[in-house]
Amino acid sequence: MNKLLNDPQTIETDMIDGVIKSAPHLVRRISAKSNVLVRLKKKPKYKVALVSGGGSGHEPLHTGYVGFGMLDAAVPGKIFTSPPATDIQAAIEEVATEAGVLCIVKNYSGDIMNFEIAIEECQSKGIKVDYVVVNDDVAVENSLYTTGRRGVAGTSLVHKIAGACAEQDGTLKEVKKVAQRVIDNVRSMGVALSPCVLPSTGLKSFDLGEDEMEIGIGIHGEPGIRREKIMPTQKIVELLMEKILADLDYKKHEVVAMVNGLGGTAQMELLLATKYVHEILDKNDIRVFDTLAGNFTTSLEMEGFSITLLRLDDDMKSLYNFPARTLAFQKYPEKI
Amino acid sequence: MNKLLNDPQTIETDMIDGVIKSAPHLVRRISAKSNVLVRLKKKPKYKVALVSGGGSGHEPLHTGYVGFGMLDAAVPGKIFTSPPATDIQAAIEEVATEAGVLCIVKNYSGDIMNFEIAIEECQSKGIKVDYVVVNDDVAVENSLYTTGRRGVAGTSLVHKIAGACAEQDGTLKEVKKVAQRVIDNVRSMGVALSPCVLPSTGLKSFDLGEDEMEIGIGIHGEPGIRREKIMPTQKIVELLMEKILADLDYKKHEVVAMVNGLGGTAQMELLLATKYVHEILDKNDIRVFDTLAGNFTTSLEMEGFSITLLRLDDDMKSLYNFPARTLAFQKYPEKI
Repeated sequence: MNKLLNDPQTIETDMIDGVIKSAPHLVRRISAKSNVLVRLKKKPKYKVALVSGGGSGHEPLHTGYVGFGMLDAAVPGKIFTSPPATDIQAAIEEVATEAGVLCIVKNYSGDIMNFEIAIEECQSKGIKVDYVVVNDDVAVENSLYTTGRRGVAGTSLVHKIAGACAEQDGTLKEVKKVAQRVIDNVRSMGVALSPCVLPSTGLKSFDLGEDEMEIGIGIHGEPGIRREKIMPTQKIVELLMEKILADLDYKKHEVVAMVNGLGGTAQMELLLATKYVHEILDKNDIRVFDTLAGNFTTSLEMEGFSITLLRLDDDMKSLYNFPARTLAFQKYPEKI
Repeated sequence: MNKLLNDPQTIETDMIDGVIKSAPHLVRRISAKSNVLVRLKKKPKYKVALVSGGGSGHEPLHTGYVGFGMLDAAVPGKIFTSPPATDIQAAIEEVATEAGVLCIVKNYSGDIMNFEIAIEECQSKGIKVDYVVVNDDVAVENSLYTTGRRGVAGTSLVHKIAGACAEQDGTLKEVKKVAQRVIDNVRSMGVALSPCVLPSTGLKSFDLGEDEMEIGIGIHGEPGIRREKIMPTQKIVELLMEKILADLDYKKHEVVAMVNGLGGTAQMELLLATKYVHEILDKNDIRVFDTLAGNFTTSLEMEGFSITLLRLDDDMKSLYNFPARTLAFQKYPEKI
């Protein structure tokens, strides 16, 4: 399997260099030797700061979401590996304000453990810090690296909406509450048609036969529900949507519908999947508030996609529409 | 080779459905049975209208660039196939204004032929219409489908800058002149590590050995300069940049640097390539006005990337920074 690859020893650092070169007006490292990324502009001291992080290889998650209206800091680990607690602690200390810090953690045992250690350490130093855990993946209840459901592409929507609340001077309690409301209302599921190759070992993240797909794949290539012969995009969308819609009552609600490429998927295919997601939403009397089709939470160059549905209330709608200015997600006032 | 695929017979139409579902506030078909996409909002009659088009499979080019500040119409052909002259003519007629129409054509023989037929037909009906030809690919001088150089990812920058000129009431002569100035100042080159699979035949667009890459690849898989063993990303960037920098004197100029994924490339790898593009620009005393890293002109799910450099003058800088609001490219006033 052919693959672009630079030096596996420095890949995470090189990638952060690339993020900074792409957005020098938005982000900076907290120190020359650290890969912790923070907003360039100092935020006001009464604003709750948002910190997220996790293994690299899921770009633009999380480093692409640092900026106005979303994250104050992103803590990247090695590829598919939780960031060390010391890095998380450094991020929290760097962005902490009197209003406090909210950490947004994807539900993986390593992430949870390291975030908890860092948070405890910060609390013992008098920093006001709390966290939420994202677990939007409806595919499996427990998995290789989790107790409970995995956190996947819904995470960027938590960044967006909690970020808007923080930007508008929500208190730590309020920002946490709305972050949790997003988590309670967001569901995702994915499918893969090919694995990715891990730079450190040169090995595929999993094996998949010719003409096979893995339904309910995790973003590290963790097993999903089952394998089947590849189906047309329309059928795959039906499979994923069936499970997502069975998990939460979306009827008569408005939703954000996200079709997320896993890294190696043709842009054309994401647009095809979007068509069929809309067809099923229409049939189920679910209205679409906004549609997102692109690469938001990837798994290196894995071919496949996931679908995320966020059920909105009026408050979330207004927070979703609030401006955001990051490398990977922009929302501006609808004036032009 | 595993691949997402829906019905090959309707793939282009399904894709356009997906674009419209993703951007119902921006675009519409000109009629129920047509795949020609135009801006939803009727433009003022004194604005020059911009039309572009070409084979599908390069998304977001061109359908993702319809909207304020860029294109008025996009004409998608079948995958990797020129759109018929009748579709191009329908697009021109739909968006034509008293100020005239400028067509932006990539340099492929089929595209040129069909655009020329359509333009002649429109002119005979009294429509004021002219065109420019984009030929930014420095890899080869003539190729499988072209006389002269191929038009590739630089095309979206022509849309952007000519679109800004048209939006600010440039005359047809002025808009054409600035479009040509972008063409004269933009150079690109790409590399592929894997082919894509053509939906209609199920065949790979070309064959490439394990551990091989094709330097100077075309966006339809046309042969480039040569094949070599895969190199680290840094070395590949050096190869591409050497050829681009030898073709035009960029020294002491400011540039837009675009790292364009060909469809199947990990987001992380595009960020790595971005780092090395910047290193070489620094070394050559070339200043970066803006950096773009993402999927702008793809070749279905081909793995690889291209680099585009646009040399700017003050006028182009101001046009580049003018607001744009399309599905795939946004530029807003830098107020937040």
